[in-house]
Amino acid sequence: MDLALLTWLVPVSGVLALLYAFSRAQWVGKQEVGTPLMAELAQAIAEGARAFLRQEYRVLVIFVAVVAVLLAFANMSQPESSWMIAISFVVGAFCSALAGFIGMTVATKANVRTTQAARTGLAPALNVAFSGGLVMGLSVVGLGVLGLGVLFLAYDAMTVWSITKVIGVISGFSLGASSIALFARVGGGIYTKAADVGADLAGKVYEGIPEDDPRNPATIADNVGDNVGDVAGMGADLFESYVGSIIGTMVLGSAFISLPAFASGGMGDISAVILPLVLAGVGILVSIAGSLFVKVKEGGNPQHALNIGEFGAAGLMAVLAYFIITIMLPETWNHTSWNGVTTEYTSLGVFWAVLIGLAAGTIIGLVTEYYTATGKGPVTGIAHQSVTGSATNIIAGLGVGMFSTGIPAVVLALGIIGAFAFAGLYGIAIAAVGMLSVTGIQLAVDAYGPISDNAGGIAEMAELPPEVRERTDKLDAVGNTTAAIGKGFAIGSAALTALGLFAAFMQQAQVPNIDVANPNILAGLLLGAMLPYVFSAMAMGAVGRAAGDMIKEVGRQFAEIPGLREGTAKPDHERCVEISTKAAIREMVAPGLLAVIVPVVIGFIDKSMLGGLLAGVTVSGVLFAIFQSNAGGAWDNAKKMIESGIMIDGTQHGKGSEAHKAAVVGDTVGDPLKDTSGPSLNILIKLIAVVALVIAPLIA
Amino acid sequence: MDLALLTWLVPVSGVLALLYAFSRAQWVGKQEVGTPLMAELAQAIAEGARAFLRQEYRVLVIFVAVVAVLLAFANMSQPESSWMIAISFVVGAFCSALAGFIGMTVATKANVRTTQAARTGLAPALNVAFSGGLVMGLSVVGLGVLGLGVLFLAYDAMTVWSITKVIGVISGFSLGASSIALFARVGGGIYTKAADVGADLAGKVYEGIPEDDPRNPATIADNVGDNVGDVAGMGADLFESYVGSIIGTMVLGSAFISLPAFASGGMGDISAVILPLVLAGVGILVSIAGSLFVKVKEGGNPQHALNIGEFGAAGLMAVLAYFIITIMLPETWNHTSWNGVTTEYTSLGVFWAVLIGLAAGTIIGLVTEYYTATGKGPVTGIAHQSVTGSATNIIAGLGVGMFSTGIPAVVLALGIIGAFAFAGLYGIAIAAVGMLSVTGIQLAVDAYGPISDNAGGIAEMAELPPEVRERTDKLDAVGNTTAAIGKGFAIGSAALTALGLFAAFMQQAQVPNIDVANPNILAGLLLGAMLPYVFSAMAMGAVGRAAGDMIKEVGRQFAEIPGLREGTAKPDHERCVEISTKAAIREMVAPGLLAVIVPVVIGFIDKSMLGGLLAGVTVSGVLFAIFQSNAGGAWDNAKKMIESGIMIDGTQHGKGSEAHKAAVVGDTVGDPLKDTSGPSLNILIKLIAVVALVIAPLIA
Repeated sequence: MDLALLTWLVPVSGVLALLYAFSRAQWVGKQEVGTPLMAELAQAIAEGARAFLRQEYRVLVIFVAVVAVLLAFANMSQPESSWMIAISFVVGAFCSALAGFIGMTVATKANVRTTQAARTGLAPALNVAFSGGLVMGLSVVGLGVLGLGVLFLAYDAMTVWSITKVIGVISGFSLGASSIALFARVGGGIYTKAADVGADLAGKVYEGIPEDDPRNPATIADNVGDNVGDVAGMGADLFESYVGSIIGTMVLGSAFISLPAFASGGMGDISAVILPLVLAGVGILVSIAGSLFVKVKEGGNPQHALNIGEFGAAGLMAVLAYFIITIMLPETWNHTSWNGVTTEYTSLGVFWAVLIGLAAGTIIGLVTEYYTATGKGPVTGIAHQSVTGSATNIIAGLGVGMFSTGIPAVVLALGIIGAFAFAGLYGIAIAAVGMLSVTGIQLAVDAYGPISDNAGGIAEMAELPPEVRERTDKLDAVGNTTAAIGKGFAIGSAALTALGLFAAFMQQAQVPNIDVANPNILAGLLLGAMLPYVFSAMAMGAVGRAAGDMIKEVGRQFAEIPGLREGTAKPDHERCVEISTKAAIREMVAPGLLAVIVPVVIGFIDKSMLGGLLAGVTVSGVLFAIFQSNAGGAWDNAKKMIESGIMIDGTQHGKGSEAHKAAVVGDTVGDPLKDTSGPSLNILIKLIAVVALVIAPLIA
Repeated sequence: MDLALLTWLVPVSGVLALLYAFSRAQWVGKQEVGTPLMAELAQAIAEGARAFLRQEYRVLVIFVAVVAVLLAFANMSQPESSWMIAISFVVGAFCSALAGFIGMTVATKANVRTTQAARTGLAPALNVAFSGGLVMGLSVVGLGVLGLGVLFLAYDAMTVWSITKVIGVISGFSLGASSIALFARVGGGIYTKAADVGADLAGKVYEGIPEDDPRNPATIADNVGDNVGDVAGMGADLFESYVGSIIGTMVLGSAFISLPAFASGGMGDISAVILPLVLAGVGILVSIAGSLFVKVKEGGNPQHALNIGEFGAAGLMAVLAYFIITIMLPETWNHTSWNGVTTEYTSLGVFWAVLIGLAAGTIIGLVTEYYTATGKGPVTGIAHQSVTGSATNIIAGLGVGMFSTGIPAVVLALGIIGAFAFAGLYGIAIAAVGMLSVTGIQLAVDAYGPISDNAGGIAEMAELPPEVRERTDKLDAVGNTTAAIGKGFAIGSAALTALGLFAAFMQQAQVPNIDVANPNILAGLLLGAMLPYVFSAMAMGAVGRAAGDMIKEVGRQFAEIPGLREGTAKPDHERCVEISTKAAIREMVAPGLLAVIVPVVIGFIDKSMLGGLLAGVTVSGVLFAIFQSNAGGAWDNAKKMIESGIMIDGTQHGKGSEAHKAAVVGDTVGDPLKDTSGPSLNILIKLIAVVALVIAPLIA
């Protein structure tokens, strides 16, 4: 096959994804909305979500403009490449923001339509919810591949630069994606928990204000938060991983195969650069194909349907990857790394690295599920410990979170060793691409969760018959599991992406080694390992302060709006949405600056020290994120287990029991851990790695 | 001064410390015990503590014997050195165990005598409590220096080996110290919290069983736990750091100065080896001198007295270190490291490294105090967050713990860079020696805390007049602060000691570099960073299970002993002590094996990977330990702040309020974090480093 043609097909697959996403979005939009009350509730949630995006994008435009100008003038000796980095950055930010906008818009349409579909049956409800999620998934991969592909083709055509330099300026795209991810994931995480905690606690602080009641003006903000955090936040997070892993691999690929095309029998020195793009493009088609198999019969298990789609896609991808790689790459070649070591590599080795990535992602997801799923040992243990009060519940949850880091760390360690053995540093980076190649359907399954969750909430608020609620509960229960797996996948992919970017940084900055026996590097390692702690503390503190603002506003409305308490007047939802939005955006400035400034400062002090910092922040951040996410997920489901009734030592415990009260405390503690600070660490480790990669030429 | 004479003076200073400790112990023993009830209570605590030690030592003897045999036959090609490592190991274990035995015996005598002294005034009470602590402090440093000094002189006299080989076999001493520390700190930590949590929760599980009541058979075990965990555990921890830092420095010192004595004007190639021993010996004299200044007038502040002693000793040590170092070492020399780099070093540089260690220890201690002290911002913040319930209290505490890692990480990073710049890897190791040189008085101040705490408890149980309780409260309040500082110091010193041992390992195992761009090393780093999480989870799980045993036993006694509930029959304390003891020893096997087996397995797979593991476990362990310790300390004092009455938003909160209940939950959660899993990490990181150092010649 012709290489030029193949390269052109990459953005085409992106366009295809967007067209298919558009058709699914149209289809979702055509579904029935249901009763006027349902429409009204959905309207309020959709408006709140849009309000958040408006506010966020207003700040983002300024932020992106400032950073773009800085980037454009960062390297006066190379004005042209500086400008192109700036343009890549703007395009990356735009693509990520657009994907988030599309995904959230459709998700806030799909929620109420899922509820309405659930009035007729389980199958149509699953169809609507999953279609809503698929739009998000395909928008992310479509815009990612389209943006990267077009930039690559355009820069390659416009300049006479080496492939290395072309890819260097494209890394700005990844920085743009990371910036939006920072706003969407950290800001969104603060938003969602500020609204959630604020709505819950208002009742405790002011007497007579009901929690979880339509009269509480913060409830809509709470529902908006689910979309903001779990749909848009997760989407931006995976968008960042997706493009980050591709760019990291392209950078390493540019020096990986140095044979000319005719001598190698393959596509020569550019094939390793194009490979991640091609794998991503094919992954889109595989994701669409997989999505066609997500069907359930009435009375069937939606989990089963989603599994067929997801694991089927992963399996198909593995098979196709074999053919793509063996066709595109030479069978065998010698690679001399930039620091002078020569090794023989094979196309089969690269295939094994991709397979390792796919397998590692799946295993980490399944382990995450084990530690956070209802009915499994760890969560049951927490439920049992709730009988003796909230302290033992908390201790048990912390223990589960800590323990759950074990297997993922071993899997990642083996994955690193294996991928490297098969294909060097390029192997580690392409393993991340392998893990992320079916992001389209993975993210569809992830986003399906909060849509079903919202659907259930609307069913309850609209007081629909119990069988509707039963169906949405069935969807929602599966959503909790997929959310847990998705979180594990997001952390694992962030880790591999960061390592790929780390390797790319070393090559671009020409760091000879990251020897921790060197005191600067050891100091960097220590500082890097500390950042996730301080970053998490900032995120958690932000939730506390923002929730405080929300509590005050709720109190003000109950005091000043006559008839609100009696239910004769309506609360001012918008004001609450605005407060949560403003707080989220204000509070994310400090942690955001930390993540950007620290690597720049350290990098200009000593590039090797920055290498140590990257290693430290990645390793420590992954473990701390797993700890927080899984502890939070386990507490959540321990509470759910007790709510559904559980026998412990011969006594029945259920909703309202002392054990339940204790479990609610655990769930509340876990909320900011699993939805704010934990996921924010995915962004932290990737953002620091991307910043390092972008400044690499300046400190080389 | 003659080098041989100087070397002989080292064990002499150890003997001096032991003689002085003996005289203080005699003096404490001669003080009045007070009323018969006081004597009875003290008797029960002392017997419980002895029972724990008996059980612990029974298991220890077997453990030490097995490991000694393994060590003796580990390297069949060098039977002589294997045997000497085994002997060093046994001597190290014996010295540490003996120090723990002496310290705990005197502490359990000093507690009741402090109470009795407090009946006459504050000054005599401080005197007794501090003297009790001083016996622990001087026993640790005395036996450490004596054991190391005698082994060094004996092996040097018995063999014709190079100095490097002699020091190599002495590293077994450090392994012995680490083994005891594992039992004392991890086992002790499990014991103390199992008893504490078990006693508290028994009342919740079985109706009608009073918490914190003499009828509760677990109360004595609880009091025993304070001595077991805070006196013996802390003592063994610092003993391990103390000897570990000295041995690490000796190993590095053996290759640090290669000039013959006459050419350098100093003491030639052995002076850098002897220097840590000499500094430690002088530190003992300085500690004794400092202790003489710990005096308080009636109505005065005991904190002030302790500060004069501690900071005075540190200041004096700094001055003396200048003269010792400039006299012992040549003014300037060239050092060619084992991997071929030549650098010029100066004696003044070594002095600066020592000063950096002293300063870093002090700063980390003060930062720890800030984050955990009553009335300061962080703790006040947690107290305020308690008003909205236990969930917000927990979230705030976790945030404080995370945030508190920031400054210590920066201080350690700067310390590493500074110490290395002044004196290479030797500088990092000797900085740890500098930090630990005044361990004698530091540990005296640490151990003073639990003695005062016990004294207060006895005053309350013996129903003494309020002014006695007021005086012991005053001592105890200061004890909380010193405990916090001591914990920070213990973590900081563990970190520097582990880094010193790490550098020594690299030299002994001839690891060319620990380049994290090497996938094996990166995998080692990741696995190492994960260990503190799993180890902590194991320790916390152990507390939960052991507390469960205790709860069952308390229930059994109330059911089976007639008249216990009515207060007419006595509970069976001994049985509870036995249960806690057995559980502690049973539960520490798994984490202990983890800490020993992992480095051995990884080391034999790839010595560089073991290097990565060491870097990972040290960096991650230090941060996770600071996080856990400080969160726990902050929760504890937030509870105390509310108990002493606090105005929040115009409302008064005190003992029994809702805010207090929430704060009690935080305190209970923090208990195992700050007293079991957190401090256990100090042992984990040092133990893994020592194991690596001991097996270094086998994998070199």
